[in-house]
Amino acid sequence: REGKSFFGTIIPLIKHAFYWTMSTFILFSTSVGFYVLFYCLIMPEHDVTRPIYFDYNDKYCGEAICPPTAKIDLLSSNTQWHAHVPSVVPVVDRNDKCDGDEEDEKKECSNNDLFGILEPENSYFFQVALIMPESNKNREVGMFMIESILKSNVLQEQKSKDSKSKVIASSSRPSLLPYQSTYVSMVKKSFLMIPLILSAIPEARTIVIETFDHYIESAQDPMNEVEIRLVVPKSQNQNTKPDMYSELQIWKAELKIGKELNKLQRIMKKWFYSSAIVGITLFMSIQIYIIALVKMWKY
Amino acid sequence: REGKSFFGTIIPLIKHAFYWTMSTFILFSTSVGFYVLFYCLIMPEHDVTRPIYFDYNDKYCGEAICPPTAKIDLLSSNTQWHAHVPSVVPVVDRNDKCDGDEEDEKKECSNNDLFGILEPENSYFFQVALIMPESNKNREVGMFMIESILKSNVLQEQKSKDSKSKVIASSSRPSLLPYQSTYVSMVKKSFLMIPLILSAIPEARTIVIETFDHYIESAQDPMNEVEIRLVVPKSQNQNTKPDMYSELQIWKAELKIGKELNKLQRIMKKWFYSSAIVGITLFMSIQIYIIALVKMWKY
Amino acid sequence: REGKSFFGTIIPLIKHAFYWTMSTFILFSTSVGFYVLFYCLIMPEHDVTRPIYFDYNDKYCGEAICPPTAKIDLLSSNTQWHAHVPSVVPVVDRNDKCDGDEEDEKKECSNNDLFGILEPENSYFFQVALIMPESNKNREVGMFMIESILKSNVLQEQKSKDSKSKVIASSSRPSLLPYQSTYVSMVKKSFLMIPLILSAIPEARTIVIETFDHYIESAQDPMNEVEIRLVVPKSQNQNTKPDMYSELQIWKAELKIGKELNKLQRIMKKWFYSSAIVGITLFMSIQIYIIALVKMWKY
Repeated sequence: REGKSFFGTIIPLIKHAFYWTMSTFILFSTSVGFYVLFYCLIMPEHDVTRPIYFDYNDKYCGEAICPPTAKIDLLSSNTQWHAHVPSVVPVVDRNDKCDGDEEDEKKECSNNDLFGILEPENSYFFQVALIMPESNKNREVGMFMIESILKSNVLQEQKSKDSKSKVIASSSRPSLLPYQSTYVSMVKKSFLMIPLILSAIPEARTIVIETFDHYIESAQDPMNEVEIRLVVPKSQNQNTKPDMYSELQIWKAELKIGKELNKLQRIMKKWFYSSAIVGITLFMSIQIYIIALVKMWKY
Repeated sequence: REGKSFFGTIIPLIKHAFYWTMSTFILFSTSVGFYVLFYCLIMPEHDVTRPIYFDYNDKYCGEAICPPTAKIDLLSSNTQWHAHVPSVVPVVDRNDKCDGDEEDEKKECSNNDLFGILEPENSYFFQVALIMPESNKNREVGMFMIESILKSNVLQEQKSKDSKSKVIASSSRPSLLPYQSTYVSMVKKSFLMIPLILSAIPEARTIVIETFDHYIESAQDPMNEVEIRLVVPKSQNQNTKPDMYSELQIWKAELKIGKELNKLQRIMKKWFYSSAIVGITLFMSIQIYIIALVKMWKY
Repeated sequence: REGKSFFGTIIPLIKHAFYWTMSTFILFSTSVGFYVLFYCLIMPEHDVTRPIYFDYNDKYCGEAICPPTAKIDLLSSNTQWHAHVPSVVPVVDRNDKCDGDEEDEKKECSNNDLFGILEPENSYFFQVALIMPESNKNREVGMFMIESILKSNVLQEQKSKDSKSKVIASSSRPSLLPYQSTYVSMVKKSFLMIPLILSAIPEARTIVIETFDHYIESAQDPMNEVEIRLVVPKSQNQNTKPDMYSELQIWKAELKIGKELNKLQRIMKKWFYSSAIVGITLFMSIQIYIIALVKMWKY
């Protein structure tokens, strides 16, 4: 009898606890899902996303010391390989803009071959995203610079190679592999062991470097070529620290160009975790409110 | 029967304890919230907050040894990138001040193109906030200097680049990564493990260096350019300690300019924890007093 | 029934013990409070408290080896930054002393522009307080010297920079980071873990170095500039211990000037803990005496 009364009190308690835990969990999950959806809808798509292939080989460089360089032609659909025969590259339809019905416009278009891929008079930001392995070499290098040069490449003829390149803007930004102590790193890797073993996620950090902000695309000088250089500052004492131009290890790199964020987007990005907490809480309260309303209406 | 009497005495006690704990916790939380709100309301907003991008690359520097340097043009809305074509930068309305109705005023404004972003005759402080990783490299460097130079850049014409730069004030302040022993560091990281793994907070320390205090903006020489240099003192013995100009690792840096604090603000900032304790205690007593009053008025 | 009588004997005992513990604790706390108040009232305020910013950069120094130096102009309200334009510094009213009604006095004042911030014919002490991190570098450095030079900077004109500096007094005092073994340090840090994690207190020691005592301010040569140098003695054997000028890590430094202590103040400072015990015991006896008197008067 005592046992029965014990179970009689304990089992409903467990049922209750399980019921509440499960419903809280479901409520939390759906709220997180809603917030993720909301975040994706609010945040603008990047207008341009291009892979960056750095050329670590200095044989093409005339100077004594050449940093790894990548030249990205934004007008071409192929990514950074040189066509020595023109027919092997897909033809880019550079006459998108000139498809107007009026003949004058067409004429104007063919006269001055100015092409960009950004909308003129709009404000853009440029980002270079580097996926850097958490290797000792990268740690030793420390600070490095990302030098970006925006160029306007005016083509005289459709298929000629005589192109005049005009530098529009340049920036050089410092960066480094974010420091993580062995202790934190070990704990993190223990949690992520299964995807790490499966190579689903690399043992690397993604570093996003804002190279340009509030860049306004000019109608006269449309940006269509980006040159990115990876510069490791030269050490004064050559004996203790060798020249490390080729020491920096980059797993993958990407150029991202997007329209400048508005105020809400900026807040949601800068205060990512804070706004996530606020947003998720909000979505949870809305769900609870709706459930309460439904229950009230039922009975 | 004994069990019943046991539960009969224990359950009200637990209820009581729970009730008191909860109400104390709520009271404490709301008091902390009130103090945070009060602190934010009292403390002035920074008038200017700009990111600092140090240029670790010494190729543009004529001297033998070049410290990492950042030049911040406070008049431009873009951050530290060079426009080689004027149309790609947002146009800064430099005629804000000259919107007076009287023609004389307008004329005077266009005559001498002196623009600053601070209010003349006001007293300001300048801060450089560095987020430094707690890495071994940074610990080895030890002391370093932040050299700041305030300049007045007088533009002859709106879009010309012929600008004369005039040094207004200079300061050089020492700083270092705050020491933290392995023991304290490990305990701290254990507490903060979840946000550290999520990279919500970096494994870094924020160091705030006051570069100027009681700086009075002059109407004749408005400050509109700040040059900040990161100098690591040259070691006398080159063999044991190599030159470490490029060794100092800075994750992020920010320039902050604000109006000088008044007495209350200064006390609340300098004695942060003491005034927090006093303030929270005060808010708690006020709440208790109000609750007591309400209860007395009820019965 | 046994249980009942058990509770009947235990509860009054607990009540009694609690009552006595509480009243002893309150008595002790108020006595400590009274002593702290008494100590603050007795001890003189420092007449001058200025932050010291050491310049670790030796590029401005003509000599071969330059120790970190700080120059403190006691007349200026801004702290150790150079104004290249006079209007950006707050104007110091150097005519405070000359506000007498008699014209002769005024005249005399404007004739010889000698200004100090200490009262002439009074006796002062000078202290340099260093907050040194308990880092290995500081331990390795060992002994170092604080060299102080007091100067009288006679200004010819209000805004001219032609000032003649006259050395009044100089001192050089040795110091070192107080030794603390790992064992004691670990126990201490365990007790202070919460404020250490919150960075409310730094892992550093405050070292107070008395640089001058019984310094009498002269009316003819008022002291208004202090130069402080941080000298690490040059090792004879360059191989074993490299030159460590830039090795000494100072988190913060402060110059304090105050009037010489009288006998009671000197005793209370020198025998700090002993006089604290005596004082607190005294205050406790006084309180007990008063309580006893009140109780006697009541019954």
